[in-house]
Amino acid sequence: MIPRYSRPDMVAIWEPTTKFRIWYEIEAHACDAMADLGVIPRENAKAVWKAKDVEFDVARIDEIEAETRHDVIAFLTHLAEHVGSDEARFVHQGMTSSDVLDTCFNIQLTRAADILIADMQGLLAALRRRAYEHKNTIRIGRSHGIHAEPTTMGLTFARFYAEMDRNLTRLRTARDEIATGAISGAVGTFANVDPRVEEHVCAQLGLTPEPISTQVIPRDRHAAFFAALGVVASSVENVAIEIRHMQRTEVLEAAEFFSMGQKGSSAMPHKKNPVLTENLTGLARLVRMTVIPAMENVALWHERDISHSSVERNIGPDATITLDFALARLTNVIDKLLVYPENMLANMNRFPGLVMSQRVLLALTQAGVSREDAYRLVQRNALRVWETGCDFRTELLNDAEVTAALSPAEIDEKFDIGYHTKHVDTIFRRVFGES
Amino acid sequence: MIPRYSRPDMVAIWEPTTKFRIWYEIEAHACDAMADLGVIPRENAKAVWKAKDVEFDVARIDEIEAETRHDVIAFLTHLAEHVGSDEARFVHQGMTSSDVLDTCFNIQLTRAADILIADMQGLLAALRRRAYEHKNTIRIGRSHGIHAEPTTMGLTFARFYAEMDRNLTRLRTARDEIATGAISGAVGTFANVDPRVEEHVCAQLGLTPEPISTQVIPRDRHAAFFAALGVVASSVENVAIEIRHMQRTEVLEAAEFFSMGQKGSSAMPHKKNPVLTENLTGLARLVRMTVIPAMENVALWHERDISHSSVERNIGPDATITLDFALARLTNVIDKLLVYPENMLANMNRFPGLVMSQRVLLALTQAGVSREDAYRLVQRNALRVWETGCDFRTELLNDAEVTAALSPAEIDEKFDIGYHTKHVDTIFRRVFGES
Amino acid sequence: MIPRYSRPDMVAIWEPTTKFRIWYEIEAHACDAMADLGVIPRENAKAVWKAKDVEFDVARIDEIEAETRHDVIAFLTHLAEHVGSDEARFVHQGMTSSDVLDTCFNIQLTRAADILIADMQGLLAALRRRAYEHKNTIRIGRSHGIHAEPTTMGLTFARFYAEMDRNLTRLRTARDEIATGAISGAVGTFANVDPRVEEHVCAQLGLTPEPISTQVIPRDRHAAFFAALGVVASSVENVAIEIRHMQRTEVLEAAEFFSMGQKGSSAMPHKKNPVLTENLTGLARLVRMTVIPAMENVALWHERDISHSSVERNIGPDATITLDFALARLTNVIDKLLVYPENMLANMNRFPGLVMSQRVLLALTQAGVSREDAYRLVQRNALRVWETGCDFRTELLNDAEVTAALSPAEIDEKFDIGYHTKHVDTIFRRVFGES
Amino acid sequence: MIPRYSRPDMVAIWEPTTKFRIWYEIEAHACDAMADLGVIPRENAKAVWKAKDVEFDVARIDEIEAETRHDVIAFLTHLAEHVGSDEARFVHQGMTSSDVLDTCFNIQLTRAADILIADMQGLLAALRRRAYEHKNTIRIGRSHGIHAEPTTMGLTFARFYAEMDRNLTRLRTARDEIATGAISGAVGTFANVDPRVEEHVCAQLGLTPEPISTQVIPRDRHAAFFAALGVVASSVENVAIEIRHMQRTEVLEAAEFFSMGQKGSSAMPHKKNPVLTENLTGLARLVRMTVIPAMENVALWHERDISHSSVERNIGPDATITLDFALARLTNVIDKLLVYPENMLANMNRFPGLVMSQRVLLALTQAGVSREDAYRLVQRNALRVWETGCDFRTELLNDAEVTAALSPAEIDEKFDIGYHTKHVDTIFRRVFGES
Repeated sequence: MIPRYSRPDMVAIWEPTTKFRIWYEIEAHACDAMADLGVIPRENAKAVWKAKDVEFDVARIDEIEAETRHDVIAFLTHLAEHVGSDEARFVHQGMTSSDVLDTCFNIQLTRAADILIADMQGLLAALRRRAYEHKNTIRIGRSHGIHAEPTTMGLTFARFYAEMDRNLTRLRTARDEIATGAISGAVGTFANVDPRVEEHVCAQLGLTPEPISTQVIPRDRHAAFFAALGVVASSVENVAIEIRHMQRTEVLEAAEFFSMGQKGSSAMPHKKNPVLTENLTGLARLVRMTVIPAMENVALWHERDISHSSVERNIGPDATITLDFALARLTNVIDKLLVYPENMLANMNRFPGLVMSQRVLLALTQAGVSREDAYRLVQRNALRVWETGCDFRTELLNDAEVTAALSPAEIDEKFDIGYHTKHVDTIFRRVFGES
Repeated sequence: MIPRYSRPDMVAIWEPTTKFRIWYEIEAHACDAMADLGVIPRENAKAVWKAKDVEFDVARIDEIEAETRHDVIAFLTHLAEHVGSDEARFVHQGMTSSDVLDTCFNIQLTRAADILIADMQGLLAALRRRAYEHKNTIRIGRSHGIHAEPTTMGLTFARFYAEMDRNLTRLRTARDEIATGAISGAVGTFANVDPRVEEHVCAQLGLTPEPISTQVIPRDRHAAFFAALGVVASSVENVAIEIRHMQRTEVLEAAEFFSMGQKGSSAMPHKKNPVLTENLTGLARLVRMTVIPAMENVALWHERDISHSSVERNIGPDATITLDFALARLTNVIDKLLVYPENMLANMNRFPGLVMSQRVLLALTQAGVSREDAYRLVQRNALRVWETGCDFRTELLNDAEVTAALSPAEIDEKFDIGYHTKHVDTIFRRVFGES
Repeated sequence: MIPRYSRPDMVAIWEPTTKFRIWYEIEAHACDAMADLGVIPRENAKAVWKAKDVEFDVARIDEIEAETRHDVIAFLTHLAEHVGSDEARFVHQGMTSSDVLDTCFNIQLTRAADILIADMQGLLAALRRRAYEHKNTIRIGRSHGIHAEPTTMGLTFARFYAEMDRNLTRLRTARDEIATGAISGAVGTFANVDPRVEEHVCAQLGLTPEPISTQVIPRDRHAAFFAALGVVASSVENVAIEIRHMQRTEVLEAAEFFSMGQKGSSAMPHKKNPVLTENLTGLARLVRMTVIPAMENVALWHERDISHSSVERNIGPDATITLDFALARLTNVIDKLLVYPENMLANMNRFPGLVMSQRVLLALTQAGVSREDAYRLVQRNALRVWETGCDFRTELLNDAEVTAALSPAEIDEKFDIGYHTKHVDTIFRRVFGES
Repeated sequence: MIPRYSRPDMVAIWEPTTKFRIWYEIEAHACDAMADLGVIPRENAKAVWKAKDVEFDVARIDEIEAETRHDVIAFLTHLAEHVGSDEARFVHQGMTSSDVLDTCFNIQLTRAADILIADMQGLLAALRRRAYEHKNTIRIGRSHGIHAEPTTMGLTFARFYAEMDRNLTRLRTARDEIATGAISGAVGTFANVDPRVEEHVCAQLGLTPEPISTQVIPRDRHAAFFAALGVVASSVENVAIEIRHMQRTEVLEAAEFFSMGQKGSSAMPHKKNPVLTENLTGLARLVRMTVIPAMENVALWHERDISHSSVERNIGPDATITLDFALARLTNVIDKLLVYPENMLANMNRFPGLVMSQRVLLALTQAGVSREDAYRLVQRNALRVWETGCDFRTELLNDAEVTAALSPAEIDEKFDIGYHTKHVDTIFRRVFGES
């Protein structure tokens, strides 16, 4: 985790104090359930809640851990310092460290998912707003980086909206994947802890009981979670790359908002660089790199090993913090993006009329010219425009083979931009449920 | 794709003949829709269906492509050879290659998903059968590869069942992700092809129309698809690793079925090696490696570039064929797995009684011994068993500090195996919906 | 492996016939060494060479393997069919399958490396030629996709040359990594086969004996090999991305060679798309994806397991065939690349004079203006050029605060392009050893 | 970076104070060179060294950066606060941020490599010591996790030594890859800064001048660096997995050193878990995951973009800190590893004599039995041992078909363990240069 690429709410989820607080709640709720079942005395369960408002002392717990070399035991020892060692006697009874650690980790991931879901909703709102704002802003569509046919900037925003809307669904699915808890004791048989303890703790903490655990919660869930984050990050990169292209000097159809105090370059003061989206490109790689180790974590040995732990201590915070930051940064970029409609038009008309070549091709075939001949006719005139910058429509009007098939009026009609935008409403309706 | 790790049904999906057949259906249905809309003559649409029973000549299409260097044009040229070049004049009108290629690729992936879903159902059936068969077969549970507490072999199968059942859901979600089609023309504006053509083609081919495409279908869908395959492959590895461990000479709790004709080793004829599950471990890596390139494919430039294509030509067939083979092989391994319950018991009793140490610990604390003291008492006796192989129960009965807290009868009771299996029914009910 | 992305020489390395030929040579040389040591009769060793000119019958070997389910035994059985089963009695004596398989695989990788090294030399020659050709072709340098300061197209080629020259070194190191052989018998102790057999076989086949093997050759070697290929592929992507950028409609400083018969787009006949470099971008991903599984292969269990095998059967051919094709394709692209110097100049002058802003900044500070003030002065004028397209030099000459520090002549001097190219010779000397 | 998996010397390399110190040295040396060339006044160059003993105020620099949003400018502003803003006027003249940032990053990576190289030397020393200690400690070799033939524990250590020795070479190569510096100014043309400045700075800081840079140092170097780390990490995993296997309850041929105060399990006090090597397995994944993003960083746009930066801010510290920790931990594990030779013997004799089956097979063929028959005879007796635990030698002596070919004395001779260790000296000589 790099502070400059992080936001406080997400960071807070991963603070030691948060972790210990969650551990505490798991233990305390478990004690309640055990008291309900008559396994431990009610007063001991009650006593645990004495620490309800305590902020646990991380340094003290670390100190104990340095001695015991076991984090959960260190915490329980510290808890006893608050609750009284006699009163705390039954805390964690029949449970294993994994019951606490895994349930806690899933709670942290679930909360992280909640933030990411909210981030995504914010991004969707920004994309939607900009889509409607530029619904009819004409822009050349490009394939292979080469001018193809006209489209609108609104459609660009709309397709990012649709992609991010799918990502919202994926994040929700990912949240469900890891919103489980397990209090199943050693090797997951519930021999030492009743399944109803797990049910109670999960109900209190908003989790589903893991149907079958093996001391640990199965890691295919986490693999699926991080895979979903990797997909979302790849979509962030997708939008970022689009903006970086748009901001290129030669294209300049859009630019990241540029505050006057900001220095673009220590050497070249005029430069306005798309540094935010370049940064997002890198952040996407960081999130994506966590997918494979999360998948490698699935195959634990027998009922559990601890190889996954160091991986998760790292990728748990790093992937969620980085993606949270990236989504917020992207939302901000979209929100304030400077859009230059005049440059869009100027770019489109760089090879005058050329973008209409497909329409002319169709018209020729519909007028009875063979596909092969039509292709040849269009290509012949198109290449001239490409090479000399002359006007495509004029060239066509001067090509006897073309005018033998199409009248001047028919040719003119092919250069109507409305032809290309006639289904924008339809597409908006598909994407936003309204046009 | 390696022939030895492939099965014919999945391979068939990726044959050129299948691809051309799908291309044909897309074009033919599109012609129907265009005729319905009055865009092209009905008789031309009808004429296309003349090729309905044709198996397209791959060599001939390759020959044309060698000249035109464009696969879709090559196919259309060949189609015209069947249908008549005048009749075929309107085929593909207003469409782009991507309309055909992307819709086809998604159909192939959808069919591949259908096979994988069926594979998974087969695997689930095998796991379920073996789970019930060994529901009460006692086996030591292990954490860190070290004996922990007893469990049953049925629970091992049941947890793989639960994991694969989640994977079944993931495969279904993945199928939905890519079961879309797009006939939206150049840069996706529908300028040259009516949206109703897309709707008709998709309806005929069992797809959902892509709400907004940009000449290509957005690749976040494919990233999510391959990510799901990567998760499934990681679960395959998980089961494979378990079996490889069980088959180790020193453990030998299970073994892959071994046919007598098979030679385990050219040098050491007695060896029965877990080569199938070792192979599955490698196959899992092969499937998993496709996840990152699929994610790198998301960020295409503007309305499309073709960088994704070579990646997908490879990982499309490779990941699905390999995973299909892996799931089938794993099903077979599970189905025929030799299970050795006596060895399980022998292993568990290697350090006699030691696996009950947790119960004794609990009993001591419940009898009023402090947690710290109880831990010390148990550890003292446990280490002796570990080092000398003596009997844990006997050691406890001879330890005055222990017997001061627990009576012999109380100690004896802690060594009842039924204690560890008492919730197997509960867990089976959670996993299978019945016990 | 996808036929369309492959070349015959590299494919041939991975053909079954090549593999069996190598197996044969390993076995035959091993017999010679064993005869030298008096371990087997000389006449039996000699008899093996009777098959010297045989092309082994792959179908027959497959047939035998179908029965024995062991590839090396199947081959040895087939070999005996040629040599005579009595004569062949001592073939493979004391050896294991891995002795043959691993040594063979390393020979294949070594040969593959030789081709890749030759490919790289071809690419270097092309880059060098184009570098000198365009040594002084002025072009705007860009950071963040934004115009920065002038450079030359020759420097662009030269930097790719330097990068690929490092890759040549990496390929040679990679070749050395895997040019080892092992004939060390079961678990690598040489108990059943004398180390001198290994030495002889390796000497005959151009390999170094593996200092210590464990039935298998250690897989860190292969991990390093595929990692090197991954780096090379990433450099291929680097060059490809540069060309894709240069070919963008708005930039058009270069273009892939376009043969007239080729159809760029089925719909838009005028388009010249950078499809080769887009393809290379995808191929780079395919090579790169093999790095992680090759690394996952390192941790085999004890003296060997077979999990690496299915991975290598796939990535061995796939990564080398794909990279060979990619390097050849890139060489061809570089060789024939259409370079448009006029467009380079036109692009550079899009914001007239602006690229000289850094020089003006320096001149102002050298004339005694504070850094902060100089920055402000330059930025003020630069932004006007950016926004209105006016001429930067004129703006400066009209800015009283600027002319207070610099005379008109001093300002003019800052717009000399030779200032930016004065060290091109120096850099060429560093890269090519001559200017 | 996770504090618990880090060591102070490596962490110090990545501290902001270290970074600023390096930036300072780059700038100060550059001023010296510029003064030598007469480009800036000598007294200004001298003045910069006034800050020689200053520990830069990170908080103050952050404060300035918050305003300027540019890290290098913030540092230079702060430097001027120490040196005097008039004296500092020429600092950084003609340079770009990347000149400072990239040269600094490479210095940090070079220093990190130095630590990793020293770590590796420490690990090699430990492996060598343990190899000689257990040179003749007999142990069963295993393939596929199944007993194969005898080997020695010394050979196991020796093969890890050989692998890590190759890794030492790889680390040195990796160090050379990134021990370069660049002071080449905007877009790398040296237009604003003389190449001799770069030469001087590099000479002072122990770097090689980058032959050709493009404002940034080419990232293929960094890709190769992180790839090397990924290979080393995979070897760490390789050793870790071996130890985890050896410590399994059923195998117990070795164990991580276990201090008495350490609690293995909160629930099961007797357990000695291989938690260090499990942890190393996870850490290996963390290092390995940085390889792909480092490779994705290679293809920067034109003369530079900043997408690599966020990736490197993360993986630079994380990969080196984690690998440093892992190597140190592994060294400690090897150093203190508890080895149990009696258990090794007991395991080997689990199926009495079976591990000699290969020798018997050979003896039979050498006695004139056909390969097929010999295989059948050995397998027949071997399977009986496998299934009943009887003694292989006795079975052979009782098999008339066997004794028809081999005398009892000949059979007995095949069970001499010295046969398997006779080349240990040879192998040690190959690995360590002495036996």
